[in-house]
Amino acid sequence: MHHLRVASPRIDLNADVGESFGPWRIGQDEQLVPLVTSVNVACGFHAGDPLVIESTIRLAVTAGVAVGAHPGYPDLQGFGRRALDLPPTELEAAVLYQVAAVAGIARALGTELRHVKAHGALYNRAARDPSVALPIARAIRRLSADLVFVGLAGSAMVTVAREEGLRVAEEAFADRGYRADGSLVPRDQPGALLPGPTETAAHAVSIARDGRVATVDGGWLELRADTICLHGDTPGAPERARAVREALATVGVEVRAL
Amino acid sequence: MHHLRVASPRIDLNADVGESFGPWRIGQDEQLVPLVTSVNVACGFHAGDPLVIESTIRLAVTAGVAVGAHPGYPDLQGFGRRALDLPPTELEAAVLYQVAAVAGIARALGTELRHVKAHGALYNRAARDPSVALPIARAIRRLSADLVFVGLAGSAMVTVAREEGLRVAEEAFADRGYRADGSLVPRDQPGALLPGPTETAAHAVSIARDGRVATVDGGWLELRADTICLHGDTPGAPERARAVREALATVGVEVRAL
Amino acid sequence: MHHLRVASPRIDLNADVGESFGPWRIGQDEQLVPLVTSVNVACGFHAGDPLVIESTIRLAVTAGVAVGAHPGYPDLQGFGRRALDLPPTELEAAVLYQVAAVAGIARALGTELRHVKAHGALYNRAARDPSVALPIARAIRRLSADLVFVGLAGSAMVTVAREEGLRVAEEAFADRGYRADGSLVPRDQPGALLPGPTETAAHAVSIARDGRVATVDGGWLELRADTICLHGDTPGAPERARAVREALATVGVEVRAL
Amino acid sequence: MHHLRVASPRIDLNADVGESFGPWRIGQDEQLVPLVTSVNVACGFHAGDPLVIESTIRLAVTAGVAVGAHPGYPDLQGFGRRALDLPPTELEAAVLYQVAAVAGIARALGTELRHVKAHGALYNRAARDPSVALPIARAIRRLSADLVFVGLAGSAMVTVAREEGLRVAEEAFADRGYRADGSLVPRDQPGALLPGPTETAAHAVSIARDGRVATVDGGWLELRADTICLHGDTPGAPERARAVREALATVGVEVRAL
Repeated sequence: MHHLRVASPRIDLNADVGESFGPWRIGQDEQLVPLVTSVNVACGFHAGDPLVIESTIRLAVTAGVAVGAHPGYPDLQGFGRRALDLPPTELEAAVLYQVAAVAGIARALGTELRHVKAHGALYNRAARDPSVALPIARAIRRLSADLVFVGLAGSAMVTVAREEGLRVAEEAFADRGYRADGSLVPRDQPGALLPGPTETAAHAVSIARDGRVATVDGGWLELRADTICLHGDTPGAPERARAVREALATVGVEVRAL
Repeated sequence: MHHLRVASPRIDLNADVGESFGPWRIGQDEQLVPLVTSVNVACGFHAGDPLVIESTIRLAVTAGVAVGAHPGYPDLQGFGRRALDLPPTELEAAVLYQVAAVAGIARALGTELRHVKAHGALYNRAARDPSVALPIARAIRRLSADLVFVGLAGSAMVTVAREEGLRVAEEAFADRGYRADGSLVPRDQPGALLPGPTETAAHAVSIARDGRVATVDGGWLELRADTICLHGDTPGAPERARAVREALATVGVEVRAL
Repeated sequence: MHHLRVASPRIDLNADVGESFGPWRIGQDEQLVPLVTSVNVACGFHAGDPLVIESTIRLAVTAGVAVGAHPGYPDLQGFGRRALDLPPTELEAAVLYQVAAVAGIARALGTELRHVKAHGALYNRAARDPSVALPIARAIRRLSADLVFVGLAGSAMVTVAREEGLRVAEEAFADRGYRADGSLVPRDQPGALLPGPTETAAHAVSIARDGRVATVDGGWLELRADTICLHGDTPGAPERARAVREALATVGVEVRAL
Repeated sequence: MHHLRVASPRIDLNADVGESFGPWRIGQDEQLVPLVTSVNVACGFHAGDPLVIESTIRLAVTAGVAVGAHPGYPDLQGFGRRALDLPPTELEAAVLYQVAAVAGIARALGTELRHVKAHGALYNRAARDPSVALPIARAIRRLSADLVFVGLAGSAMVTVAREEGLRVAEEAFADRGYRADGSLVPRDQPGALLPGPTETAAHAVSIARDGRVATVDGGWLELRADTICLHGDTPGAPERARAVREALATVGVEVRAL
């Protein structure tokens, strides 16, 4: 008689890091980086600068965490959260430039870039609009077929990236509220951010183990995720990350880079 | 009986290119690129932008010309010609970032970066000041031991780069006036720029064949150069480049990339 | 017996100027400024820099031409032609800052700012969308009730500005093609730009004298305009401006600042 | 018999404010502004952005504090602390632009700009080098003869500004260590920053009441100051400011704007 073999569930935990700029600090990277398995490093267009990028990657290498690039719109003041109408060729070139810069610095620090995840308004537009997702996917593929494209679980951007021949990781958010249609509650609306570590951890467990997430209207949303994002600029980010790791360990979900 | 073997003289011709930005044009790259053997591509900090970098490298690849990076101070408005007091760690990171970005884009376009040459005020400071040359050399070496460091012939910067273990190409200027101490006549002084193609070509021949150059005070300066720079923003740059190539061919100097 | 008194027709001619940046030149301001009656000076966010602004206003003062501010999106690389989703408070502050800077420099040069006209994608969005026009109008009114708001003739932006209590000048374009719905043919489509001085002058005469303009589909569009724009970066801009002035003089339209 | 009339001592307390940028926060302006009598508002070149400038001035107006402009080098990443070799005409235009912008926003918020103080590396260079101080003084004078030029007490910059016909306020630093030659201990050296509120208050009292300040080598430096700076980004800035105000009140020094 045969036993049914079920792969033990596993998940990657990722965080947006390296979002300081010049003298200005955002995030608690020193505490957060060792708690995740992958980091998305801001590339200097919406946040980060060459020195911040270098020290952030060094931090990740020391912690044994996988390094990815986190390209965004060229808009420091708006932190990449204000959509900018870039024609496809300009967008493709902008992503190519940003990812190339971070990939080269990573290599100089002895590691290889593992993945790419768009930031802020660029991510949000790409999730909905294939004409925005496509230049991102193309830029990544031109740089390396080995790079993993990280995109919103179930969105147009992951479809586009797969069609371009890229390896894809679908992403869910442990600290953000979901709506019934699979979109995130916008940041300026109630429920956008889960209250604290406990709720964030519960969210993470249901995503990673059960393939679903509670929505703000009280329902459940089916969700297949390869990686869970923990935002570095969320209040109490390190506490949330610790709570998520403990909860996942308790229920037997393996936490591992893409 | 032995024949004396004399290596036939050869020289690289380089040009600073990709100095347009957004809607603004500088240089006549389409005409100039096919006339040189190496190009130095602005990296987006003092000139250039992702789209300009990409189309410039494409132009070089089509012309079979070697591609190098041309990093500068982060100062678009000043075109990298105003010195900025960057601490060494910030300078090293800034060069690392710029060269990594251009190297990655070059690779995506099917070519490998061959050399790196600092731009404007950064080049001028590094030529005189080892503490400025060193972070540049270090950034290059960390990216690849195969990259050639291009620096002012006979200056401190080439010494520093050799001590860091880099391959070095010493540079002379065909379109610029020299002073007796080996420095260039500053751009805001008479004699900074040679009048036209004939003088530029004569300059190039004496540099490449005879290892010396006429100075503005009527003397001669000994000069060992591996590469000669033809500025893209010099009036009549393509005409000068054509005159230089013809003159070098006439006297039997081979023109070849580093 | 009574004579019918008809006010002799008059029009302002305006041009976008001061669009150079650092070492990069755009436009032929020295030739164009003396041919118009008002200039719109780029404020440093999408084009222009402090030195360019100063020398451009000086040029206008010397030519006796009215000076206005030409604020745009904070996007040099895109020249303000790529729409950026600025929240209303950020847009109002951005316009306030730009107009204040140019107004202060104008005052230091002995003149007072006369009008404000939004640039590029900001102008186009404001023409259609009152929520974009309103922050612009508010910023202007907060700076001075004497400033004239220049907007697309017949558009939402002139309505919004009037409701905010501003004096308004409605603008038409002499060198651009019109569609039947009153919008301009987009720059990337055929017919966007009239072929040359003759067509531009004919356009200007029908706008200024007859209150109508020929459309690309062969019809006529009623149009009430107080000012006609002559773009500085249009090929042959000075020739077009001369042709327009001659044609207007011939038919007896007075050319005068707002 | 005549009484000797001694003017009661008075001093202005100033703080650098508005140094946040986009999503990044620096300083504790809400707490600090009500504790000083004058604020120096960053103008967007080294720190600050239009929205930050507006809300900072609003804060000052509410607190009844005098508003000044705080222009710096165009270098956000370096926070204006890295010297940039601006030619005099470019520097004058850059100061003109920045001060004009902040002055116009202040006027829109119902107040008039009272003073101008250069920031960071620009301040430090101007203190030593009249060729840097002069363009700053000229830009201010061109904007308004009523603006007070704030400069390092006893330095070349106050001399230059007086020669240009400006009203001058000489500045001392309550939270920074002094060397015997009157210069400040550089920020990267021990003694640059006084340990806490008590030392800062003692420093302020000896400056404001006694016209002298203790130096790091144990001596005293004669110092005539009209205003004392309390840095907003110093650790415990509000506590220091409160201690200074209490100490000055105790010894009978009046605290009042310039």
